[in-house]
Order: sequence, then structure tokens, then C-alpha cells
Amino acid sequence: MNDPQIPQDSIIWSQEMVRSTLPKRAQDSHKGVFGTALLVAGGPDMPGAALISGLGALTSGVGKLAIGTYRETIRSIAHAAAEATYVPDALIHIANGTHSLTSYKAIACGPGTLPDAVTEAAIDSLLNSPAPLILDAGALSERSYVKRSAPLILTPHAGEFSRISGYSTDQMAESPGACASAFAMEHDLTIVLKGPRTTIAFPDGELFHNPTGNAALAKGGTGDMLTGMMLGMLCCHENWRHAVLNAVYLHGACADEFIKTRSPHTMLAHDIAKLLPEVWKQYE
Amino acid sequence: MNDPQIPQDSIIWSQEMVRSTLPKRAQDSHKGVFGTALLVAGGPDMPGAALISGLGALTSGVGKLAIGTYRETIRSIAHAAAEATYVPDALIHIANGTHSLTSYKAIACGPGTLPDAVTEAAIDSLLNSPAPLILDAGALSERSYVKRSAPLILTPHAGEFSRISGYSTDQMAESPGACASAFAMEHDLTIVLKGPRTTIAFPDGELFHNPTGNAALAKGGTGDMLTGMMLGMLCCHENWRHAVLNAVYLHGACADEFIKTRSPHTMLAHDIAKLLPEVWKQYE
Amino acid sequence: MNDPQIPQDSIIWSQEMVRSTLPKRAQDSHKGVFGTALLVAGGPDMPGAALISGLGALTSGVGKLAIGTYRETIRSIAHAAAEATYVPDALIHIANGTHSLTSYKAIACGPGTLPDAVTEAAIDSLLNSPAPLILDAGALSERSYVKRSAPLILTPHAGEFSRISGYSTDQMAESPGACASAFAMEHDLTIVLKGPRTTIAFPDGELFHNPTGNAALAKGGTGDMLTGMMLGMLCCHENWRHAVLNAVYLHGACADEFIKTRSPHTMLAHDIAKLLPEVWKQYE
Amino acid sequence: MNDPQIPQDSIIWSQEMVRSTLPKRAQDSHKGVFGTALLVAGGPDMPGAALISGLGALTSGVGKLAIGTYRETIRSIAHAAAEATYVPDALIHIANGTHSLTSYKAIACGPGTLPDAVTEAAIDSLLNSPAPLILDAGALSERSYVKRSAPLILTPHAGEFSRISGYSTDQMAESPGACASAFAMEHDLTIVLKGPRTTIAFPDGELFHNPTGNAALAKGGTGDMLTGMMLGMLCCHENWRHAVLNAVYLHGACADEFIKTRSPHTMLAHDIAKLLPEVWKQYE
Ligand SMILES: Nc1ncnc2c1ncn2[C@@H]1O[C@H](COP(=O)(O)O)[C@@H](O)[C@H]1O
Ligand SMILES: Nc1ncnc2c1ncn2[C@@H]1O[C@H](COP(=O)(O)O)[C@@H](O)[C@H]1O
Ligand SMILES: Nc1ncnc2c1ncn2[C@@H]1O[C@H](COP(=O)(O)O)[C@@H](O)[C@H]1O
Ligand SMILES: Nc1ncnc2c1ncn2[C@@H]1O[C@H](COP(=O)(O)O)[C@@H](O)[C@H]1O
Ligand SMILES: [Mg+2]
Ligand SMILES: [Mg+2]
Ligand SMILES: [Mg+2]
Ligand SMILES: [Mg+2]
Repeated sequence: MNDPQIPQDSIIWSQEMVRSTLPKRAQDSHKGVFGTALLVAGGPDMPGAALISGLGALTSGVGKLAIGTYRETIRSIAHAAAEATYVPDALIHIANGTHSLTSYKAIACGPGTLPDAVTEAAIDSLLNSPAPLILDAGALSERSYVKRSAPLILTPHAGEFSRISGYSTDQMAESPGACASAFAMEHDLTIVLKGPRTTIAFPDGELFHNPTGNAALAKGGTGDMLTGMMLGMLCCHENWRHAVLNAVYLHGACADEFIKTRSPHTMLAHDIAKLLPEVWKQYE
Repeated sequence: MNDPQIPQDSIIWSQEMVRSTLPKRAQDSHKGVFGTALLVAGGPDMPGAALISGLGALTSGVGKLAIGTYRETIRSIAHAAAEATYVPDALIHIANGTHSLTSYKAIACGPGTLPDAVTEAAIDSLLNSPAPLILDAGALSERSYVKRSAPLILTPHAGEFSRISGYSTDQMAESPGACASAFAMEHDLTIVLKGPRTTIAFPDGELFHNPTGNAALAKGGTGDMLTGMMLGMLCCHENWRHAVLNAVYLHGACADEFIKTRSPHTMLAHDIAKLLPEVWKQYE
Repeated sequence: MNDPQIPQDSIIWSQEMVRSTLPKRAQDSHKGVFGTALLVAGGPDMPGAALISGLGALTSGVGKLAIGTYRETIRSIAHAAAEATYVPDALIHIANGTHSLTSYKAIACGPGTLPDAVTEAAIDSLLNSPAPLILDAGALSERSYVKRSAPLILTPHAGEFSRISGYSTDQMAESPGACASAFAMEHDLTIVLKGPRTTIAFPDGELFHNPTGNAALAKGGTGDMLTGMMLGMLCCHENWRHAVLNAVYLHGACADEFIKTRSPHTMLAHDIAKLLPEVWKQYE
Repeated sequence: MNDPQIPQDSIIWSQEMVRSTLPKRAQDSHKGVFGTALLVAGGPDMPGAALISGLGALTSGVGKLAIGTYRETIRSIAHAAAEATYVPDALIHIANGTHSLTSYKAIACGPGTLPDAVTEAAIDSLLNSPAPLILDAGALSERSYVKRSAPLILTPHAGEFSRISGYSTDQMAESPGACASAFAMEHDLTIVLKGPRTTIAFPDGELFHNPTGNAALAKGGTGDMLTGMMLGMLCCHENWRHAVLNAVYLHGACADEFIKTRSPHTMLAHDIAKLLPEVWKQYE
């Protein structure tokens, strides 16, 4: 009997694969080598999502991080993600085309943002940018996707994937890998279908399954942290697929570290960024 | 000779009871399984109460937490309870019936709120909601209670209980359990009568006494933390009575852990949330 | 040969005296037993002083703490001293007599406040209050002192003491104890003459010398921390003199703990509050 | 074969030199002995730079620290650098000559500031002040330098040095020491040419090379931290050259300490200030 949660043809992204694909931070590198990531996140009622994903990116290898968010949110979080620079009212500027996107090494959009018309217009601009792009949460909508050269990565949980793909909850529960793969191949993008067992479907049909993580992650904010970590990993990995897979893996590994000595009911999303430095080291 | 502080017919909620009633966070759960809690807290001069109780809820098993408070307070605390979402001016919206309460798994109101007309109107709405409801501090008033299907839990200290029940301080000191039980049964609600030895009286006459805690808790803010923890516990426990009892127990157990190596004069309420992850684990 | 820094007739406030005078936090106490302290601190350009002294008070045994400061400062610090409540524009309200002072167990004024006319008017009100009163920093001025029943404690460093007393730096360097005692007896108040070796002169001529502390304390903000700690200690000690002496002693002992493993150049004032819980415990 | 990155005639600033030049914080010193440092930092989109460099200065031996920045930035960071005092709109006041600079022991300008006309005018004033002056980041421009008695220290990375000196990237890569020395001698100032191997060129031709640091430092904010640390060190060292060299050395040593147990991809600039107390101690 197969566990219905594990897609049949998927490969488990194992500890050994992580060890062999994590990048070395070259001794003679400077921040420019890792580039500047753009994170568009945080809405009026969800300012914390910008902070959580910002901390995820900062601790995951970026060179520099620019956080695009509301002025109000900048005031709230600037001291807590002090290493970032800020782009006030980024969504509007991106939607209007008045904020250049050409210099970013990678871009993520969605944690804490409202799924409204401005966000949709901004996503149009982002899709036309030359950088690898992660869309999450408020940036996940049923829409068409233009052809782009750089990777497009969507990180829905089951509910979000159902909304954007039209698959029913039953279909997804029975064969998550098949659903994710079909959608990824049809739209030429990558689906990170998040859940107790996260499935990663690449546009060419390659399918992976993540072995780490536990129910300490079943709490608001952990998805935002993953988006930030993936954004940072895109900046320090040469191979973007490894970045995606290692972000998912290490995110779960931090939660596994947490519950060794602490109750899973008590973890907060930002704890992941505090655990990451030592957890990551274990795989280097 | 009986200790007059321990109500005679009460059961001590023991370590073994905690061990056998704490929930397992099921491996395949997602945040939706634990639901969204609503915390209405924090007034203009007491913004910190929203943060303290928010941290209590976030570390006590919620799926998601929405904090309803003043815009000003959101600015102050959003980065420190980054995993929460925010409902600006919640008291007014709840009082006016313009904020729907149907989707919350549990609700708490009172830490840091002013006991004014708006609060009273909001409580009317909250009492009519279908979720388990905790009223604390500024939400404790002498009033009538409508019949509701979900549990109603009041968490007064002696002064507050005297104010809402009319019992004199002498009566309460002599037989706290009897007073709490009488009130609980008459009004069909649960009384958590807080103090050096906290008494929990359920509406059917069941009476418990909490064995943990110490004078490190005799400082502003610790009650706010308890309210938040109880709110979180309601989201992750199947049995709401266990949630109430375990919140009181673990709250005190954290303080007991604190003073093993630190002076009881020096504890701050938010230290409890920092100690909770490892303390909780000891009972799993 | 006598060390000129140690006043000749002073008693060293020793480790044994600390041990025998630190209060027990009675098991059955509640926050009301320790009372509410009022801290008036923080000016527009020195908001941090309110936070540092607030943390000092909160970790030193208060029941409740009310911080009176500017609205702007409340916004900045409310999440970091979340256990406190706030009195906006306190200086003005106290100066105008529109904020009642009768219910406070102890009051401190001065860290970060400007030495202007409003402050002076507020001090007039504070001197007429029935609570033990600490004046520090911006609240130290050359002025007359009304007769009051509760203790009045001034905590100047050498420069401030010279300004308020008229003693020259030379006089003070030669016989700090004599200068402090003379001033204390003449004005019927207590002088905590701060420096590398702090001298405490009580109004009846009793003179103490503090043996703890080191040059890690020679940095902005450490005096604010002492004021806050003393305020907290006044709330949990029965004997106010012991509160004053133990605050000075433990403040220095924290710095001594710090430099066991860390360079004295690197200590920040708020580190003292982080060290205090374990340091205090060593004397219980 | 010589490593082209190490300038040929440079001296390695070694562990032994650090040990023999780090200052003792004299037991009987008070904050006035170490003086007040002025840090002008933080722009509207880079508020965090003021905090990071502020924490660097506070943990590196200053007596007092005044942070000159935007009002908005003060609101964001005041609680996190609570030991500092603040000068609102400092750049404008310094540019206009309405903020006196005579009392500062050392001054730094640039982290997070915009390289605009106001900054340039402020630098004119700063150059005319009597204190040792560090210019970094937004304060580095192609300009002429007036003769001044106190040291002038520029801390460019390769890109910034190319911009202010006109040397090409190739020239600098081939002989960084020669380029830095030539510029330092010509303009009678000190160049800290930052990079994987930082070169320090004094105006008399003395040339040093720093042996510490690693790619964990290749991330936004680490330069701001160095500027702050150097500012603090100028306040506690008697010999300003030792201050410059020890700041660069300890900054790198903290990063070396970090990666002993943590991945270099995960370090944040403010982690350096957290590690500094114990790292510094190792050299005392
Ligand atoms: N029970 C679980 N076991 C493992 N990972 C989980 C579990 N619940 C949630 N997660 C992870 O936590 C994150 C939740 O993201 P989101 O649903 O966007 O908040 C995703 O990365 C999920 O894969
Ligand atoms: N001396 C004490 N021993 C044990 N618990 C205490 C003591 N003092 C206060 N508490 C607890 O601390 C909290 C105070 O709540 P409140 O009075 O609302 O601030 C309650 O949970 C009390 O039960
Ligand atoms: N070198 C030192 N040794 C011991 N204590 C010191 C030293 N320098 C400062 N202090 C203490 O640090 C605090 C400074 O207060 P203030 O001058 O108001 O900032 C006082 O409590 C002083 O006694
Ligand atoms: N690969 C590296 N190895 C050692 N130090 C580095 C490295 N990359 C950057 N740094 C240091 O980090 C700081 C970066 O400053 P900035 O370029 O202004 O952000 C400087 O002190 C550099 O010397
Ligand atoms: Mg999500
Ligand atoms: Mg309470
Ligand atoms: Mg002072
Ligand atoms: Mg720089």
C-alpha cells in the first residue's frame, strides 16, 4: 500500500542531495556576487508577513534585500529587518511601471498582500521582469501566465492550489503529485504544493517530495518564512531548482530541530530564522 | 487543619492530568485544523496588553491569530507579534456588528481594554457569537449573561470577581471555591478565580485548584498572558475544559521554571512565553 | 594610607548586608502587595531613557509600573516595555495637577527629561506627593526642597552634584562622603552620589559605600537603569534604605557579572536588566 | 608567487598587535572620559543603517552616542538603540551650521544617507570640525578635502573607492595597496579599502592588511556595522590608528566566530554586535 500523500513517481529530496547541492559562500565574494533580492510583501492588516519573509530572505544567503511594502509597514518593521532597504508603496510603483525591476537577482511577491487589482497589475509587471519570480499567498490567483525565460515558482498550500488550478480537494488529496505536475507542465512553471508533505513539481515533469517538517509548522506565518527563504536561496544557489528544494527542506528541518526540545504547539514562524544558522551548518 | 485558600471539594489539577490531556499536534495537520482565534485587547494607555496576550496565544497552539486593537497599537506591536494578523478598531466594529464573528474558533476580550460603553456593546456581540469566549480585565463587568451554546469563561482576580459578583473580599478569602462555584452555576459559565492559588469553577459545579505558580506572577501583565494562552489552548484542545485547566497549569509551571535560576522579583510577563516551549514539552 | 575615593566614615554595603536585607516575595502575594510605581522619563531626543529605566523597574520587583512620557515615546517603546501602562504627556499633567499622585507606592522622575520649566513645575507637584521620590538627571536642579514625610532620594553623578550643591569638583573628589552627607543632612534628603565608587548619604548622616561595579558602567544609559531599579526596589522592600542600597549594589553586581566573560567596552545599559534575574538570585 | 590581493609592502595587523593595542577601560573612568560620538546615518529608505551602525558604536566603547537621523527613523529605532540620544534632522542642521560640532570626540557620517546636496553641505561642515571623522557609503563622493588636524578616515568598498578615486576595477584588483596608499598620501587621509581582504592605508604611507573575516560578511549592512564600531573605537582608544585597525580586525573576528557553528549564508550584520562582547574579551 502506498501512502496516498506521497506522489508515486516523486523522488524524495534527501539529506544527501541537500548536502551535495548547498552552495559554498566563496571566501573572496562580496555582497554584489549574491545580488539584490526584491520582496514585495505586507499589507495593512498583515504587516508581519513582510517581516517574517524578510528575515527568511536575509538569513538565507542574499547579498542585499529590498523590501517593497506600505510606508506604515516600513515604520513597524524597519528596526527588526534592519539589514534590508525599503521601497515604499512598491506594489503601486511596480503596477505603474515606475519602479525598475531589471537589476534584481530574484523577486518574491505575495506574503500578506491583498489579492486586489493593484496586486494583479503588479504581478503583470513582475512576470515581465527578467528575474526568477516567486508568487505566494495574496499573489496567487487564477490567471494566465506569459512565457518568460526566468523561472516562475508558485508556492500554494492545498486551498490556494485548488483556487488557482480548479482541482478539487479530493483530487488533490488522492494524487497531489499528479495534479501539481499537470499544472506545472501545462503552464510552464514550478509548483511548490505545500502541506504536511510538500510536493515540488517542475515544469518538465520532475517531481520531488520533501521529507522534513512537522505540525509545528501548522501555524500562520510559516508559509511567509518559506517564501523569504526561497528568495534568499535563489540568490546564493547557482541552480535555481536546488534553491527551491533546499529552501523547502531546510524550512522543515528547522521545525524538526525545534521540536527536539520544545512542544510543536509553541513554535512561531520567526523561530525558524533563529534556528536556521545552526541547522544549515549541519548540511555543509 | 485545612488551608483556607484551598476550596474543600476541589480537585487538584495534577501533573498527571496535564500529561494525559495535553493534545498531540497531529503530524498531518495544517493551520486550518487549529482554526483562527480572535483576541480583542490593548487600549490607548495599555498597548502592551495586546502584545503580551498575543504572544501567549501564538505560543499556545493556535492555527492563526487575529488581534483586534487600536490602529496606534498595531503600529507599536505588529513587528513583535508578526505571526498575527490585525483587525483595526475591532471593538467598534464588533460593537456595531460590522465585523463578522462566525469564523473564529475561539475569542478572548479584555486585556488592556477600557471598561466603557463601546466595550460593553462589543461584549454583547461577542456573547452572541458561536465561539468559546474568554472575558478578562476590562471586559469583566457586573452584567447579565445571555444563554449561549459555546463556553463562556471569565478570568477575574479577586478584586475583579468581587466587583462582578458582589461577594465581599472576606467571603471570597474564606471560601473562594464556594463563591466561584455558586456564581458559575448561577450564570452558567466558568470562573477562573485567579490568585496565588487559582480556582477553576465550571458551570456544572466541578471545581479545580491549580497547584503551580508563585509570586513571580504577582506583577502586571501576567494575567494578560494567561488570557492569551487560554485562547490558544482552546484552539488546539478538543475538550475546552482541559484547555482552561492546562492553560492555568502551564502558566504557573513557567513561573516555577523561571525561579529555579532567577529571582521571582525579576520576572516579566512575556518571559512566560519564552519559557513555555520547553516547559510544555516536559508534559508531552 | 586611605583611598581618597572612599569616604572615611562610610560603611561598605557588603554582600552579607545584601543577603540579609533582600526581600522575600511572599508566596501568597499579588501585584497589589507591591503597588504601582510611577516613572516619569524620556524626552523628545532621549526616548530610550524611558525604556531603560522602565525595564529596570519592571525587573526589580514592582507590582505594576506606569510610565509617564511623551506620546511619541510611548509609540516607540510600548512593545519593549509591554508590561507597563502609560500616562501620555505626564509631565504636563503632573505640573498642572491634573494627574493624581496619591495612589503610587513610589515615584521616580528625570531620566531623559529636559530640565525646563515644565519639569520644575512637575517636580513641585511630585515633592508634594506622599510617595518616596527619586529625582535623577533632568530632574536634578539647584532648588529648595519642601519638608515631606516620605523619603526623597537624589541620584546625581559628580557633575550633577556639583551643579545642585555648589561643591567644586576638587572638594567632591577629596571628600565625596563629607560633601554628600553635608548636603543630605542640610536638605533632609538622601544623596546617591554616583561614580566609580558610589556613595550613599542618608539624611541622618549614615553613610555607605558601594563595593560593586566597574567601568563597563561608564556609558550612557546606566544611570537611567539604576533609577528604574531603585524605583522597583522601593516597591518590594519594606525598608526604603535597603531598597536604595540594594539597587546600587545589584546594579554594579550585574556589570561585574558581565565582564567575567565579556569586554567592559561592550556592555549596554539594558544588558543589566537581562543579567539581573540570575544575579539577584545569587543573593537570595 | 604572491597573492595579488595582498599588497606587497603591507603589514598584517596580527592577533598580537590587537592584544597589545586594545585599550583597558580604566576602573575609575566615567562616561565623560570616553566622550560623545556623533553618528549621522539612516535615510528614508535605509533606516536600518542608522540602527546597525548605532549598535556598532554602542558596543565598541563610546561614552555616549548621539545619532543624527530623520525623525521618522528615530521613531523606528529609538527603542532598539535605547542607550543613544537623538538629533532629529541632523544632516540639515549640520549643513546649515545650526548644530554645534565642537564637543564630539569622534564623528561618522554616511551609512544609509543619500549622496545628495544636503549631505555634501553637511560633509563640508563635518570636515571643518575638530574631531576625527569617518566618511562611509552615502558620504563618499569625488570631492576635494580641506586640510584638517584631526584624522579623516574613508571606508569605501572597491566600487566606492573606484568612484571617488578614479582608479579602475582592474587597477585596484591588481594592486589595492598601492592604489589605497597613493590616494591616502595625496589627500592626507586614511583609506580603509574594504573587501574580502581589507587594506588600511594611512596618510604617511603605512599600509596594513586585515587577516580576519569571511564571506558571511558579504551581505548588506556589514559595512554599516564596521563604521559604527570604528566610531566607538575612536572614543576608547588613545591612538586613533589602533582604533581603525582594531575595528576592522574585531569586525572580521566576529564573523569568524559566527561561522564556527553557523552557516556563513545566514549571518545578519547585527549579529556582529551580539558576538562582539565575547570576541573582544578574547583579546584582552
Ligand atoms: N503538518 C505539517 N507538517 C509539515 N509541514 C507543514 C505542516 N503544516 C504546515 N506545514 C508547512 O508550513 C508551511 C505553511 O504554509 P502556509 O500554508 O502558506 O502558511 C508550508 O511550508 C507547509 O509545508
Ligand atoms: N503569588 C502568586 N502565586 C501564584 N500565582 C500568582 C500569584 N500572584 C499572581 N498569580 C497569577 O498571576 C496572574 C495575575 O493575573 P492578573 O491579576 O490579572 O494580573 C494570575 O494568573 C494569578 O493566578
Ligand atoms: N567606572 C565605574 N565603576 C563603577 N561604576 C560606574 C563607573 N562608571 C559609572 N558607574 C556607574 O554607572 C552609573 C552612571 O550613571 P550616570 O552618570 O547617570 O549615567 C552610576 O550608577 C555609576 O555609579
Ligand atoms: N568575503 C569577505 N571576506 C571578508 N570580509 C568581507 C567579505 N565580504 C565583505 N566583507 C567585509 O564586509 C564589509 C562590507 O562592507 P560594505 O561593502 O560597505 O557593505 C566590509 O568590512 C568588508 O571588508
Ligand atoms: Mg501562506
Ligand atoms: Mg488582569
Ligand atoms: Mg544619569
Ligand atoms: Mg557600505
